[in-house]
Amino acid sequence: MAEHRFLRALRRQPVDCTPVWIMRQAGRYLPEYRATRARAGSFVKLCKTPELACEVTLQPIARYPLDAAILFSDILTIPDAMGLGLSVEDGVGPRLAHPLRTRADIERLGVPDPETELRYVIDAVRLIRRELRERVPLIGFAGSPWTLACYMIEGEGGASFARAKALAWDEPATMHRLLEVVARAVAAYLAAQAAAGAQALMVFDTWGGLLAPAMFREFSLRYLAQIARSIQSHNVASRVPLILFSKGANAHLEALADTGCAALGLDWTISLGAARARVGARVALQGNLDPAVLHARPETIRAEVQAALADFGPHPGHVFNLGHGITPDVDPDRLAVLIDAVHESSATATVRAPS
Amino acid sequence: MAEHRFLRALRRQPVDCTPVWIMRQAGRYLPEYRATRARAGSFVKLCKTPELACEVTLQPIARYPLDAAILFSDILTIPDAMGLGLSVEDGVGPRLAHPLRTRADIERLGVPDPETELRYVIDAVRLIRRELRERVPLIGFAGSPWTLACYMIEGEGGASFARAKALAWDEPATMHRLLEVVARAVAAYLAAQAAAGAQALMVFDTWGGLLAPAMFREFSLRYLAQIARSIQSHNVASRVPLILFSKGANAHLEALADTGCAALGLDWTISLGAARARVGARVALQGNLDPAVLHARPETIRAEVQAALADFGPHPGHVFNLGHGITPDVDPDRLAVLIDAVHESSATATVRAPS
Repeated sequence: MAEHRFLRALRRQPVDCTPVWIMRQAGRYLPEYRATRARAGSFVKLCKTPELACEVTLQPIARYPLDAAILFSDILTIPDAMGLGLSVEDGVGPRLAHPLRTRADIERLGVPDPETELRYVIDAVRLIRRELRERVPLIGFAGSPWTLACYMIEGEGGASFARAKALAWDEPATMHRLLEVVARAVAAYLAAQAAAGAQALMVFDTWGGLLAPAMFREFSLRYLAQIARSIQSHNVASRVPLILFSKGANAHLEALADTGCAALGLDWTISLGAARARVGARVALQGNLDPAVLHARPETIRAEVQAALADFGPHPGHVFNLGHGITPDVDPDRLAVLIDAVHESSATATVRAPS
Repeated sequence: MAEHRFLRALRRQPVDCTPVWIMRQAGRYLPEYRATRARAGSFVKLCKTPELACEVTLQPIARYPLDAAILFSDILTIPDAMGLGLSVEDGVGPRLAHPLRTRADIERLGVPDPETELRYVIDAVRLIRRELRERVPLIGFAGSPWTLACYMIEGEGGASFARAKALAWDEPATMHRLLEVVARAVAAYLAAQAAAGAQALMVFDTWGGLLAPAMFREFSLRYLAQIARSIQSHNVASRVPLILFSKGANAHLEALADTGCAALGLDWTISLGAARARVGARVALQGNLDPAVLHARPETIRAEVQAALADFGPHPGHVFNLGHGITPDVDPDRLAVLIDAVHESSATATVRAPS
């Protein structure tokens, strides 16, 4: 069987049309997701029950001609497996019952064994991969060490993560110890997802962009590179393309591309053409329409898709996506418009390109 | 009397040491502010009573050796004067009772006369200027047209401003009509503040960085440039330096510097040295430590101040500030450490520079 256009694009090989998937495509904007979520009782229960996680992972694949499925899970499964106690309340967001408060809390942390302590995730990967029946590839994912450390120190999301940053400034050795153990946990977790059937891997560095440049290099980039190296040295995972997404960190694209990842996720504050000019020959690019475009009219959505495709140009190595997750208030029909526009407009562009 | 080092730095003239002021320096982290705020009864009452606005403006000047005072007010005074009904609830943020919902709502808007419809602000400027007795210069300010339009359309702050963006995409002519009237209102308002005694002017483009590059140029930058031109053509205001601060829009520094402003505010996600290399000869730079640094230890604060000063280098044209407003949870003593470090370390640097 020929490799799917999503995996070909990640390898910067020619494709019949630009592949597209959407961050948070299995999510609250879909009525079928809300029904399963209600049945599960809680978000964490949904994550921890492989059959339910599989069900919601497949929902957007059944509804739309998407080019990839992404494991339904949460980046905080690792802190949860480390004993920090994850809960997710509607409208409040994730919360860790036992945030890290002392150096001893950090020194006590170990790397969870994915096959036992995160078994529900690995089982979900196996189940989803089987149920997908090769329709589209499956993406596994994890949070970045810096992003997970922010949550682990603060106990919840926040605008500033001042406590995490103060630890990095005041006690860098302690922060590095934390990031080191989390990076090893993330690498092992991603390798286990690949071994269980994930065909691409993505790391979400959601809060990397909140760091000043020197802090980003020392406390986020360094551990992203470590994870990329670790995966490359792993038997199974070395063949699985890795996508890095440091939101708000466009100043660091070249350095991110140099980590050895296959692709970079992009938020919408940089043009695809400008990003490609900077790193295009080294990595594929994934993105990057402003998610708010799904609140605009269908003709606007089509025009913005065409503008993004034209901006990237007739080159290999583009995976279409939004620049951040789809929001719960989107009309599902608008997403259909976007996906169709990507396939139709890029197929045209491909035919035109050689002329 | 020799011009104050803050105004000299904005004109990129030599200074005895680097001037420093802090965004939101008159704010909730100060117990004396909280006392006045409690006495006023509401945030809006505090803004609308010149004696109280003057009192809180002067509080940080009395406590710290700051190099500038900034008018205590809110960027939403203009939408309020346009009839949208401002209220600010603690912990919730600002809210407009009558957000713009139809094209007719937008067509109905007029430019408020600052001397009558925003008289309380202009009176506050006059009173503060008098009470300052030339100790330090006074900065007047306004929100950017794009940022004000976001609030005026949504009615409140939000992460995505999808409604405002959808209007810009779907009905650009209507959005431009709104931005045009707001830009004229901002220019008139800033000119009136200058005429009343403000010695520098700042425009906060808080939400400019949420726009994709082409959208930023069309819907934010264009109106910042229009305001800069308008001020330059105004008798009094043309002599008053203008500082533009587009948070999260570091990709556009060169274009912002080309508007004719005197200085650019910088958030902390770019190094001062990198920013200076890009635009330093054209404008002064204001910034840019991560506000979270005030949660770190005094020795960390001093080290970060020294690193920022070294990064900027021994050149004229630096006004020290945070990269965003000081947060309510900061210990006021930490701010004293930062301010002293700026003055002491930069005075040393100046002596060293010629050798």
